[in-house]
Amino acid sequence: MHLPLTLFDRIFLVAAGKAAPRMAATIEQILGPLLSGGIVVTKRGHLSAPFKTCHAIEAGHPVPDEAGLNAAELVRDLLRELNARDLLIVAVSGGASALLSAPCRSIPLAGKQRATSLLLRAGASITELNTIRKHLSFLKGGGLAALAYPATVVGFLLSDVIGDPLDVIGSGLTAPDPSTFADALAILEKYELTSQVPAPVRDHLTAGAAGIIPETPKPGSPVFANVHNVIVGSNEQALAAAARKANELNYRTLVLSSTLYGESREVARVHAQILRQITRTGQPVPRPACVLAGGETTVTVKGHGKGGRNQEFALAAAIDIAGFDRALVLSCGTDGTDGPTDAAGAIATGDTILRAAGLGLDPLCYLAANDSYTFFDRLGDLLKTGPTGTNVMDIHILLAG
Amino acid sequence: MHLPLTLFDRIFLVAAGKAAPRMAATIEQILGPLLSGGIVVTKRGHLSAPFKTCHAIEAGHPVPDEAGLNAAELVRDLLRELNARDLLIVAVSGGASALLSAPCRSIPLAGKQRATSLLLRAGASITELNTIRKHLSFLKGGGLAALAYPATVVGFLLSDVIGDPLDVIGSGLTAPDPSTFADALAILEKYELTSQVPAPVRDHLTAGAAGIIPETPKPGSPVFANVHNVIVGSNEQALAAAARKANELNYRTLVLSSTLYGESREVARVHAQILRQITRTGQPVPRPACVLAGGETTVTVKGHGKGGRNQEFALAAAIDIAGFDRALVLSCGTDGTDGPTDAAGAIATGDTILRAAGLGLDPLCYLAANDSYTFFDRLGDLLKTGPTGTNVMDIHILLAG
Repeated sequence: MHLPLTLFDRIFLVAAGKAAPRMAATIEQILGPLLSGGIVVTKRGHLSAPFKTCHAIEAGHPVPDEAGLNAAELVRDLLRELNARDLLIVAVSGGASALLSAPCRSIPLAGKQRATSLLLRAGASITELNTIRKHLSFLKGGGLAALAYPATVVGFLLSDVIGDPLDVIGSGLTAPDPSTFADALAILEKYELTSQVPAPVRDHLTAGAAGIIPETPKPGSPVFANVHNVIVGSNEQALAAAARKANELNYRTLVLSSTLYGESREVARVHAQILRQITRTGQPVPRPACVLAGGETTVTVKGHGKGGRNQEFALAAAIDIAGFDRALVLSCGTDGTDGPTDAAGAIATGDTILRAAGLGLDPLCYLAANDSYTFFDRLGDLLKTGPTGTNVMDIHILLAG
Repeated sequence: MHLPLTLFDRIFLVAAGKAAPRMAATIEQILGPLLSGGIVVTKRGHLSAPFKTCHAIEAGHPVPDEAGLNAAELVRDLLRELNARDLLIVAVSGGASALLSAPCRSIPLAGKQRATSLLLRAGASITELNTIRKHLSFLKGGGLAALAYPATVVGFLLSDVIGDPLDVIGSGLTAPDPSTFADALAILEKYELTSQVPAPVRDHLTAGAAGIIPETPKPGSPVFANVHNVIVGSNEQALAAAARKANELNYRTLVLSSTLYGESREVARVHAQILRQITRTGQPVPRPACVLAGGETTVTVKGHGKGGRNQEFALAAAIDIAGFDRALVLSCGTDGTDGPTDAAGAIATGDTILRAAGLGLDPLCYLAANDSYTFFDRLGDLLKTGPTGTNVMDIHILLAG
């Protein structure tokens, strides 16, 4: 894609997500005086340096709040001003969906929140949840691109979604939405929630299905004629960069997958057994070996401990690699946050369990309690990076030195 | 190990397990008239050709029965006859533990069965279960080797246990037992089963812990001075053989691990995502690619369908590789049996889900119902080999052509 900036009278920026400050600062730096204005919305505590041109807002995440609502209104006001000789850059990263909370006027924020939590508890998939969300929001599901029309839109997407689907990253602010109001209603019916969701939510979806409210813009819609989406960062790219570094450090390197998902401890055990194979047989790659993988696992919480999916991954791996010589498993969130903790993840080595025993810590008890943070905190083996300014899911690193 | 057969006056054979007929037939063939006698115990339906020298018995598996009890008594009678100039070959394969059910005289079979099922339901690990079993049996936990003393014993072990631990394969008929009667009692207490297990079981373990009944022979015991255990078959070896064949067929081959375990569908998903990475990026190995792994997964049964851990693995993988070009996942038990079915496993390809849709089969429903057999049976994609004569856990094959 090549777009000469001279085509445009003005350039604006909307940046939303955990990585918004860093993305916006870079864009400000590159464009300098060419940037006419913009709005940066990020998670509370993620702002540091002030912006030259953009207006910056901190809002609630993962639970949307009033600040996010106000940010969405400001974005709408900005989009309404755009014309065919404007360029809008949209920098999207993980968290954008919650941070730019834009419920349609008739739906109170609490109603949208209640619908979301009912669906989550009923076991709805993230795709199903997004279908509902897109049809309750005026920015999601391509709504932002539609409002920006007829301006040219360039979406820079930092993908925190497995497989990098454009319509799911940030709930598809700049992407066509293949799902419909009818799909959204069918999902409520599937989980028998039609009568349980707040009336404004049900009424809105029903009105949409009846054609009274316009659908989200679909693939092929003219509003996307001048929309260009680019994945500027992904788990795949993070793994490739890690692989280059590992090669520089003389490791023999293997990338397994950038799309792993599933129950964290189970995925961890597969990794630990691959590390075991390396230490025993030199397969699938001989020492000094570095095996890289990424994606986003989940934790079925059964205990009352403190932790995150990466710390739990490291704890499960630690148990399986106990006693291994020169073996290490690192699991961390690339955004620097793992679950509701101040750690990005944790590091397990062949002597983690022995050292834990020395402190009287039973790893199985901590795993059963989902208390991986406390376990690694006691050992001093948490990985704490602070906000990293990016967000491309998690990475898992296996080393056999 | 080199043992000149001329050292011995007589050679006897005890073969137990699902692979016992084939192992025994081969040993008979090699030794010919040098073999003085022996006993072969296998699963009902696994005997085919008659033996020249050995006495063959079919017994119950996985639930022990009277035939297994009688077989254990016959084995004891044989062992008592041995002297220092005899060689005893013990051919052990998966199932030996149940087939050679040898509860100590004071414990009725039903009592042992009840203790086992209580422990299983309480969530005891296989190691804990084995500690109890070894202390209720006169053959397990090295008991067979102790009874054979002072004869020389050669154990040929076909490993169906992750990591090939000598004291776990076949409950360690010919291996030292590091666990004690006190450990066994502690396990009952841990699961609060002390008062619930049948009185003969509790009394036997208590008497053992008090030193009234001799302990199982421990590492370093003189009864093992002339015992030689050899792993003659393992998942590792099966994967190595498969890798050689794949290389011959011009696949680029990678062995991930021979020690995988965990929830079958979760392990399958990791594999499917590795296959996805291969098809998208040529990592961790370029096409034509063959990735091999093995071990023994488990299924947490929630539905009422028919299937096995390998068929469930293939079903979960099929969902994740839907639409992939020239992609295949095979999962099967090396013994030819997967769960309570007549299939060894199943094969999933990139078009499995499309073909299933054509038959009106919803793969998610079949997965939720643990009904993988019905799903693949309808498609004609079950893998049926019949008993293979070996038993080295499961193998998983990923192909990207």
